[in-house]
Amino acid sequence: MLDATLAELAERGYPALTVEAVAARSGVHKTTIYRRWGSADGLLAAALERETGAGWTPPDTGSLAGDLRELVTELVATFTDPARAALPMAVLSAAFQSPAAARALRAFYADRQGRAADIVRRAVARGEAPAGTDPVEVVRAACAPVFYRLVVTREPVDAAVAERAAAAAVLATRAATFT
Amino acid sequence: MLDATLAELAERGYPALTVEAVAARSGVHKTTIYRRWGSADGLLAAALERETGAGWTPPDTGSLAGDLRELVTELVATFTDPARAALPMAVLSAAFQSPAAARALRAFYADRQGRAADIVRRAVARGEAPAGTDPVEVVRAACAPVFYRLVVTREPVDAAVAERAAAAAVLATRAATFT
Repeated sequence: MLDATLAELAERGYPALTVEAVAARSGVHKTTIYRRWGSADGLLAAALERETGAGWTPPDTGSLAGDLRELVTELVATFTDPARAALPMAVLSAAFQSPAAARALRAFYADRQGRAADIVRRAVARGEAPAGTDPVEVVRAACAPVFYRLVVTREPVDAAVAERAAAAAVLATRAATFT
Repeated sequence: MLDATLAELAERGYPALTVEAVAARSGVHKTTIYRRWGSADGLLAAALERETGAGWTPPDTGSLAGDLRELVTELVATFTDPARAALPMAVLSAAFQSPAAARALRAFYADRQGRAADIVRRAVARGEAPAGTDPVEVVRAACAPVFYRLVVTREPVDAAVAERAAAAAVLATRAATFT
């Protein structure tokens, strides 16, 4: 059911996401869906919640620069591949129109940022970043320029943008910007 | 007509934006609107294009730190005031579903970022930022963390977030991150 929800969302976008559409795709009767999830927003929130629990771990290359570069490069790779970008873009879009989607998105990124922050905790332990560095703030600094181009200024992103965003976050971290 | 378009968008969001709704609000016959603008997307693009030409100028406090702080603080003030946030949030949302809105949004931010870059050009001239600094990249660095929280991670923003984003951009600029 949750797979059917995410497939519908990725293929047709949030405005077309209905319990009827998910019922048709999954072969489950819509009454059953309404009883368990209440609405299309309930389905979406449950599907995102499941993704939130998935066992993602951040890169571990041995250096802050290497880890952040890999993290942001992977982010750019996801969002420049139309097949992989469809679902996350649909969820970002849904959050503008659905408080349940916005809450689920917030929980998803709280989880992801918390995991990615291990990159910075390891760097602090290795002496690559100043003690007292806010690890999530470094992750935000590395990823924000990519999302800003993708969904605000609608500028193109590529590997060079990823490299520069990661490198800028490293320099800023070393300059004690995030302590 | 363009005012009616922006008012509809701010009040009811992009999914409800139709030529019929703009016709009803403005008192202009829908046939006239179709003839001149073609569609609701055409109206939206024209309305954003008009905003793009508006005479916005960036703050000029005499220092890079002061200017960026004022720029980002104003951004946060806009997006934390529901009355002022409604329209820009609706446009950001529309860009996910309408290529015309995405193009108009891109043109709008290209214009705004180009104007805001004067802050950095003045700082370079005063010797506050290294020669060869990419001025638009500094503007992106200052604004991106705010938008990232607003529309991606859906985390709250406040004056402290603005101060920190601006201060981080200043430190990173001085560390030659954006040359």
